[in-house]
Amino acid sequence: MMNNRNKNDEYIVIVGCGRLGSHLARLLSKARKSVVVIDKNEGAFHRLGDDFSGFTIEADAIEIDSLLQAKINKADVVVTTTNDDNTNILIAQIAKIIYKVPKVIARLFEPSRQQVYEELGIETLCPTILSAIELKNIIVGDKMEV
Amino acid sequence: MMNNRNKNDEYIVIVGCGRLGSHLARLLSKARKSVVVIDKNEGAFHRLGDDFSGFTIEADAIEIDSLLQAKINKADVVVTTTNDDNTNILIAQIAKIIYKVPKVIARLFEPSRQQVYEELGIETLCPTILSAIELKNIIVGDKMEV
Repeated sequence: MMNNRNKNDEYIVIVGCGRLGSHLARLLSKARKSVVVIDKNEGAFHRLGDDFSGFTIEADAIEIDSLLQAKINKADVVVTTTNDDNTNILIAQIAKIIYKVPKVIARLFEPSRQQVYEELGIETLCPTILSAIELKNIIVGDKMEV
Repeated sequence: MMNNRNKNDEYIVIVGCGRLGSHLARLLSKARKSVVVIDKNEGAFHRLGDDFSGFTIEADAIEIDSLLQAKINKADVVVTTTNDDNTNILIAQIAKIIYKVPKVIARLFEPSRQQVYEELGIETLCPTILSAIELKNIIVGDKMEV
């Protein structure tokens, strides 16, 4: 069923409304995606700003009930962005293995176990590695003409 | 004088040897760049690994003496990567304004003042924004064929 949806119907669940989760939610909202953000701290949702068109759920995403409230079983994409790697990976595994979410991405601070998760079908994104590569490209790519 | 240097002679000072600073230092070392890393905590240098070919200086980069010890006046690039935005910006300004370092990049957690720094000629890199954009591209760019 989900495979028949087109891009515009995609339903995205973001776990964690810190800097990364909220910024991503705003970008996706601007791109007219259906987005739900879960955070256990209601105050975190102010980061979404006034023009955020998605939904918010104040709940602990570690609890299955919270994930069901967010309709994780109907999600096309789940992104876990909390500040805790273990939480991100646990929820990513629940999304992938129990609820068969087609695309699951976990933010990781420490990428040492990255390969294990990717073997489970969970993509990982490490802001540190991404930033280091970007900086390296800025530095090494620069002055190519000299 | 510095403008006559070619790419391979570039001298890069990295302030902060946390996850980002150390990862960047390793990438640049692997690219055969001359790199010096400053951190006030000697224990941080273990992150560089055994194959790091650059130099390390255990010092507080807020002090001018430490920066001179790192030969900041001869640097082509200075990157500030500590966990404190104010520290990163302060050292970036010293590098740019006092020592006329041609390329200065500061890591910022809160990019709200980004524009001000870019007007001063200091590039900024915000790992959160970079990561949010990358995630958005993964999500929105996916299933283009549907």
